Amino acid sequence: MEKLRYLRGSSYVKRKPPLLLLYLKLSLTPRTKYLCPLSILPQRHHTIVYYPKLMIRKMASSATCIFCKIVKGEIPCFKLVETEKTLAFLDIQPLSRGHALVIPKHHGEKLADIPDDSLSELLPIAKKLAIASGAVDYNILQNNGKLAHQEVGHVHVHMIPKPNEKEGLIVGWPQQATDMEGLKKLHAEIKEKL
Amino acid sequence: MEKLRYLRGSSYVKRKPPLLLLYLKLSLTPRTKYLCPLSILPQRHHTIVYYPKLMIRKMASSATCIFCKIVKGEIPCFKLVETEKTLAFLDIQPLSRGHALVIPKHHGEKLADIPDDSLSELLPIAKKLAIASGAVDYNILQNNGKLAHQEVGHVHVHMIPKPNEKEGLIVGWPQQATDMEGLKKLHAEIKEKL
Repeated sequence: MEKLRYLRGSSYVKRKPPLLLLYLKLSLTPRTKYLCPLSILPQRHHTIVYYPKLMIRKMASSATCIFCKIVKGEIPCFKLVETEKTLAFLDIQPLSRGHALVIPKHHGEKLADIPDDSLSELLPIAKKLAIASGAVDYNILQNNGKLAHQEVGHVHVHMIPKPNEKEGLIVGWPQQATDMEGLKKLHAEIKEKL
Repeated sequence: MEKLRYLRGSSYVKRKPPLLLLYLKLSLTPRTKYLCPLSILPQRHHTIVYYPKLMIRKMASSATCIFCKIVKGEIPCFKLVETEKTLAFLDIQPLSRGHALVIPKHHGEKLADIPDDSLSELLPIAKKLAIASGAVDYNILQNNGKLAHQEVGHVHVHMIPKPNEKEGLIVGWPQQATDMEGLKKLHAEIKEKL
């Protein structure tokens, strides 16, 4: 059964909605659900403001996510840049001096889970960090999924200075042969889905 | 001697300016230079509109850059997405099926060389490509400098699907020990430069 998200104080949690709310969810449009008088809900929900999912999209957060806790200030960080939608701080287990993270405040595990307006600031801020760190060579990396070396399930962009061969990101590049026919087919296939 | 850039048809080239133009460059402000009647220039320049460098910042291009040639259509590509400022296409020497590149049309070698408004579209478009390619796990990588594995001197963001351990990006992670005192000093140092 799909879960409703709701706001209680400053933290956002997911849980199974009460049956009445489920009924409202099915019978009302998001807008009327939002305006629906809370007094018709069971007593224990009176103080909770329910929002339809779409309306809290920008506020998405996870109660168990370590980066959401950093965003809320529940866990300290070496903060470098903060805007309405973005936070940047030093990685405390760096690959090199100046290794920093830029994250959207919006919680989402992978790039595909983050709204475009929360993604658009990430590279301009990574650029600022690269300049301020004094890095000459550096890698910008954002991993999606455990297989792709993602360790925290909240999108984060690494800005990793590369001062020498040993420090910083090590890039392995198992390049495949060029197959023009295969690429042509793949191109048509992806274009169709865009 | 500094070179003027000028626009001729749809391609941009750099070359030594004629002496008269150099004189104008030195004697006029950018605005008056822009407005300067072209009839005072030697005959062979009558049809050329000269712009001061600042006014063509958004159109920055390099005559020798392979990605600028792709942008201009001089070299073909398997184009996936194109907007006013951005181009995305398949990498023809992929690390995995669906490996694609997203580039700003603005020429610049490293992230620090690209204006923010040309950077902000790159991740939203990489996200589109990741979704359209059907990738579950994937890496977003942007290398700056030869030491950091950059091979073409024009900023490009890789979207590299990671279907299994062998294909896709290989990430080496030479993590350093956490040094809270060192991080504290570095934090203050970088903050000062931001």
